[in-house]
Amino acid sequence: MTTVAAYAAPAANAPLERTTIERRAVREFDVLIDIKFAGICHTDIHLVREGWGEAIFPMVPGHEIAGVVSEVGPGVTKYKVGDRVGVGCLVDSCRECDNCKAGQEHHCVRGAVQTYNAIGRDGEITYGGYATHVVVDENFVVRIPDGLSLDVAAPLLCAGITTYAPLKQWGAGPGKKVAVVGLGGLGHVGVKIAHALGAEVTVLSQSLRKKDDGLKLGADHYYATSDPKTFEELAGSFDLIVSTVSAPLDLSAYLGLLKTGGALVNVGVPEEPIAFHPFSLIGGNKILAGSMIGGIPETQEMLDFCAEHGIGAEIERIAASEINQAYERVLASDVRYRFVIDNATI
Amino acid sequence: MTTVAAYAAPAANAPLERTTIERRAVREFDVLIDIKFAGICHTDIHLVREGWGEAIFPMVPGHEIAGVVSEVGPGVTKYKVGDRVGVGCLVDSCRECDNCKAGQEHHCVRGAVQTYNAIGRDGEITYGGYATHVVVDENFVVRIPDGLSLDVAAPLLCAGITTYAPLKQWGAGPGKKVAVVGLGGLGHVGVKIAHALGAEVTVLSQSLRKKDDGLKLGADHYYATSDPKTFEELAGSFDLIVSTVSAPLDLSAYLGLLKTGGALVNVGVPEEPIAFHPFSLIGGNKILAGSMIGGIPETQEMLDFCAEHGIGAEIERIAASEINQAYERVLASDVRYRFVIDNATI
Repeated sequence: MTTVAAYAAPAANAPLERTTIERRAVREFDVLIDIKFAGICHTDIHLVREGWGEAIFPMVPGHEIAGVVSEVGPGVTKYKVGDRVGVGCLVDSCRECDNCKAGQEHHCVRGAVQTYNAIGRDGEITYGGYATHVVVDENFVVRIPDGLSLDVAAPLLCAGITTYAPLKQWGAGPGKKVAVVGLGGLGHVGVKIAHALGAEVTVLSQSLRKKDDGLKLGADHYYATSDPKTFEELAGSFDLIVSTVSAPLDLSAYLGLLKTGGALVNVGVPEEPIAFHPFSLIGGNKILAGSMIGGIPETQEMLDFCAEHGIGAEIERIAASEINQAYERVLASDVRYRFVIDNATI
Repeated sequence: MTTVAAYAAPAANAPLERTTIERRAVREFDVLIDIKFAGICHTDIHLVREGWGEAIFPMVPGHEIAGVVSEVGPGVTKYKVGDRVGVGCLVDSCRECDNCKAGQEHHCVRGAVQTYNAIGRDGEITYGGYATHVVVDENFVVRIPDGLSLDVAAPLLCAGITTYAPLKQWGAGPGKKVAVVGLGGLGHVGVKIAHALGAEVTVLSQSLRKKDDGLKLGADHYYATSDPKTFEELAGSFDLIVSTVSAPLDLSAYLGLLKTGGALVNVGVPEEPIAFHPFSLIGGNKILAGSMIGGIPETQEMLDFCAEHGIGAEIERIAASEINQAYERVLASDVRYRFVIDNATI
């Protein structure tokens, strides 16, 4: 066991404060990572505030982790000291079910072990990336390619894979018209990736406030969803819509923007049920799908793709002491586009 | 113009009665079909009773038409007198849009012309298959293979293509577990087709009343959805669920029956909006899709597939004078599994 510095929420809704936690001793297949940067994901705030139900406290959030390997267990073959690596939303899974064997560890039928706010297979509580170090089994660590700075890479571990996976699965590429709903932490990375995949990209945002940014990030078009004309003008336009927003969508309206056979994929998680008329799916053979992060192999593929295309998150680096203030700014949509903690300040 | 005998509903909700209608003279690319059999689809009843909104009266329903070519226009190349042919849910489309060019005439962006209760591109009202003859452009006529009797083929023109299209699109085949919800006119054909495609087929029906039939039709398993244990036992089981019922489903419960990445495809049309929790899609990358009939090339492919596998509908042949009674029996689910009108009795 090693005592390391961290920022934790001592109780639900409490501000995060500096503390120490114990990290396990490095086991045979473990990697000790010196965390350089940790992104702040909206999920961190949901969990600290128990928006999705009861959580485990004290909680050290953070599942967008970028750092450097500083020690490896004797059985480790994939990484060596000095390697630049990342850890995303999961740190373990059963490794035996069909999903795990297929590299879909995030859909492990026995339940993947989340990077924080979870109980590991060893019975220990997991703590996330708002800390100076983390110990992770090498199979749940990914390599950050040399071309990618660690600070802009960190958010890719959640925001990147969350948008990359559905864009790939549903065929974003040359000749395809893709819309990204919401230009926030997820959406801005989604725009960059969709553009790099060769698709014609449209941002559908509540207002035109971030239009200049959207176009710079790679969008070809930018529309305000608060304007009803948007839904008339764009009717039947898109092969694929990826919605990154947590607010409930008027599904029937968005389905109307799809071409015949098009897909609307939700990666944001509204807290309330949503209703829609089944004929809005049947009429044009439309598809409504969900997508949740991605498995380890695809996360590596995403990082390699981002490095090749020079894609990192747009970030605002903060000191650990600014985390609570950053949370408020995230809730006020006052961030362009991801806060990243400089873990040297913890 | 030719005067032909038909059964028509003179007004909304009125019983159907024998009458005569005018069929257009055979044009350059037209085929005159001597109708031998016409299936009774639930849609016929919906439309006669204006369940989906205002309709055109008098109405001659029928979009499951099987017959023999008795005259061809001078430009016709695909069919000759004596050919065994079928007509399904559409008799024309713009033929110029991307969907039409892709053989997706049913998704014509200008609107396909329905076989009845529609206005043709010539401005004339269309009348369906409850008649002795129909005149249709050869491009909207399909060939009924020799191996298939006309009476059991008729329902395939709607019920067959409606279930074949999603089963093919979503990969029903060897090694796949497919559930068909509802064992009615659509469902019983869906079970036969899914079985012939090589899938392991489960029927999900309200009760076990038709279990013996289901197993004979090709189902491997049969469960009652009125039994809550069904949803526990089958959780995470299916690659694909095709729902053929018009009653609103508890979507979250059915999505729970899908494997990771599985698809629930709706081909029945509930009249009311349905609600579901978005997380039931996101959690396992699940898919909710709609599917509406199919284009002309795929309808031909379906008939060829059915002939090859000896698949026809299970039918009860009736005289035209029994149509109104048959409607009541359809509404009472008292048909195994499709009424087919013997058009010689009109």
